[in-house]
Amino acid sequence: MALIVAKFGGTSVADTARIETAAAKVLREVERGNKVVVVVSAMAGVTNQLVGYCDSISKMYDLREYDAVVSSGEQITAGLMAMALQKIGVQARSWLGWQVPIRTDNVHGKARIEDIDVTELRKRLDSGEVAVVPGFQGVTDRNRISTLGRGGSDTTGVALAAALKADRCDIYTDVNGVYTTDPRIVEKARKIDRISYEEMMEMASLGSKVLQIRSVEIAMNSNVPVQVLSSFEDAIGSDLPGTLVTREEDIMEKEIVSGVACSRDEAKITVLDVPDKPGLAARIFGPLAAAAINIDMIVQNVSSDGKHTDITFTVSRRESTRALEVIGNLEEFKGAGVLTADNVAKISVVGVGMVSHHGVASTMFKTLADKGINIQVISTSEIKISVLIDEQYAELAVRALHEAYGLSKKAA
Amino acid sequence: MALIVAKFGGTSVADTARIETAAAKVLREVERGNKVVVVVSAMAGVTNQLVGYCDSISKMYDLREYDAVVSSGEQITAGLMAMALQKIGVQARSWLGWQVPIRTDNVHGKARIEDIDVTELRKRLDSGEVAVVPGFQGVTDRNRISTLGRGGSDTTGVALAAALKADRCDIYTDVNGVYTTDPRIVEKARKIDRISYEEMMEMASLGSKVLQIRSVEIAMNSNVPVQVLSSFEDAIGSDLPGTLVTREEDIMEKEIVSGVACSRDEAKITVLDVPDKPGLAARIFGPLAAAAINIDMIVQNVSSDGKHTDITFTVSRRESTRALEVIGNLEEFKGAGVLTADNVAKISVVGVGMVSHHGVASTMFKTLADKGINIQVISTSEIKISVLIDEQYAELAVRALHEAYGLSKKAA
Repeated sequence: MALIVAKFGGTSVADTARIETAAAKVLREVERGNKVVVVVSAMAGVTNQLVGYCDSISKMYDLREYDAVVSSGEQITAGLMAMALQKIGVQARSWLGWQVPIRTDNVHGKARIEDIDVTELRKRLDSGEVAVVPGFQGVTDRNRISTLGRGGSDTTGVALAAALKADRCDIYTDVNGVYTTDPRIVEKARKIDRISYEEMMEMASLGSKVLQIRSVEIAMNSNVPVQVLSSFEDAIGSDLPGTLVTREEDIMEKEIVSGVACSRDEAKITVLDVPDKPGLAARIFGPLAAAAINIDMIVQNVSSDGKHTDITFTVSRRESTRALEVIGNLEEFKGAGVLTADNVAKISVVGVGMVSHHGVASTMFKTLADKGINIQVISTSEIKISVLIDEQYAELAVRALHEAYGLSKKAA
Repeated sequence: MALIVAKFGGTSVADTARIETAAAKVLREVERGNKVVVVVSAMAGVTNQLVGYCDSISKMYDLREYDAVVSSGEQITAGLMAMALQKIGVQARSWLGWQVPIRTDNVHGKARIEDIDVTELRKRLDSGEVAVVPGFQGVTDRNRISTLGRGGSDTTGVALAAALKADRCDIYTDVNGVYTTDPRIVEKARKIDRISYEEMMEMASLGSKVLQIRSVEIAMNSNVPVQVLSSFEDAIGSDLPGTLVTREEDIMEKEIVSGVACSRDEAKITVLDVPDKPGLAARIFGPLAAAAINIDMIVQNVSSDGKHTDITFTVSRRESTRALEVIGNLEEFKGAGVLTADNVAKISVVGVGMVSHHGVASTMFKTLADKGINIQVISTSEIKISVLIDEQYAELAVRALHEAYGLSKKAA
């Protein structure tokens, strides 16, 4: 008998018919003798509608009230899922964030889970009841509803699995797993059966939208195996229905490169002709960090005259306007030329095997050069290499790299 | 400085623009130096949509989960109203049922408020903050969300006013007060400036849908003046913007008849040729009461042969099928003929002055007779007389009675 957390995303609970389909998946786990905690997202479109209401009242809305409004989306699904389970004979009860309770910090709109008290939940699971928990929400020490930020239902699922020491967290979504790259770009993209937490973190942060990065971090820290699988199909002819995200040690066949990711969420900013003095980077990036703007890639050119240089970095597109404002307000850079570009894409190759294999980077650079694609910025970590290129070549680059690293599935 | 509870119904908060209009009304109270608690309904249509989701999963849904789902409608409005108030400079905070807390019994779907702990609420009001409370919801001693049944937001408003010993509870709605009768039927219907709790109870129970009856009961028991007024207009040329529901002693000019009410929610059931023995009524109405079916009017005919009689009563239309089932299952009445009719309307005249004035009933009967309208059933209380008539004459009867009691407003 295992304890499973099963999380269903927005498209998997898009309407009451799909909620019933999802309930049938839960019934199957119950019939296998498993204890199940179900975590649900809001029905597709509901969260956007609720955010739209908030926006239409004020762009500067109070995040505490935003949380009260927006958390109701998952609350609705939780009640409906409990009803759907009861209808097919499964004893079930909904548990809202404050009822569990799932305690978070006070950072409304993107709260972090601090502690989940599973005492009551465990009692009810032991009595044979399925618990249905709305994702994305918790309660602060001031007794206010908080939300975890977009995609937070994955985090709720994995955090509950960690707190309950569950055997597995199943993330039901609209794809049947994690792929070597976006199958819409490369038809021959292959489903990955097993992937390490570290690789998944990179894939998640690099534009593969299957799992929220914070949830992978929690899974890694507490060693919860996470399975990504489809709520719409039953896998046939595969040893695993989806993709299992697990410890590197538990993966037998390690790929040098596991996948190729593509992100179009980048904006490139270049500050021209800044005085080349020690501490330059700190004077630019300190104020940006203070404004809570995340910097991704950074490159500083060699100074040609020994006195001035250019500095280039990337931020997410939705933060680029704010980043420009912050720089514009810095006394030191008043009058400095600033170039910005949104027409860039970040292409990354990810793989835990990379650290012990030479030539991964040179294969990447040669492949792109052969296609005549210019590399604007490079950044690397132990398990990934990312390059920034002109957005119009993004798909060409992904296809070429996917082929170059031998990731495509064999023709049938 | 007064303490006011202001409740806004579904049409008054139908969309974000109307929520902002309602917020402006609250600002006006704050500018007068008043402390304000705002109670909000769900945005028009939202509750029906949520109930529709529940129905589509199962007609036999669990009421505990129904409450979790349906209560989210008011939760959404509460957050949005707090935002709208903040936008115009009013310090505001939403308080959900479990946050106040508003404690109810465990009868999910139609819970009764048992106790409201206003300690925290009062502190925040004293600090100058406006509290926004979703109507219709509370929390049980098992920490589950409960709802008060349809129209329960009025009850939340009045119960909060009672618990806070508020100076007044303002019920903002889509009409500007309580009328002597339905203005859609009688163009000359007059807005009533002041009406007693007792009369309002009768009006509420007799089909005037302005206030929920339970809320009037609570107001009467705790002497909270309730004002019904429009959220869409500002009254001009009237001593009161709306209708004040208050103690009879506080009403100077007492009308003999205050209003004429019409209800089309009745179904008439006649059980034919039942043995005329002592306890007959108890043997029919006992089982109906046990099935939680409310009986309204009852008439038992005089027995013609001394052995058999007919018994006629009315129930609300949506309960008539269940009532017929209950009677069909009674051993004693097996084979008895049962007649039912939905094409009936109940017309009532209401007035506290009635008890000390003769001739009110005879005026009613004569007026109806003059129009050739047959009376099927009569029931009376100290402050009202109701008759059941053929539904097709309902409007004719209302117009004739409104005229007969001199209720029409003078021509301008």
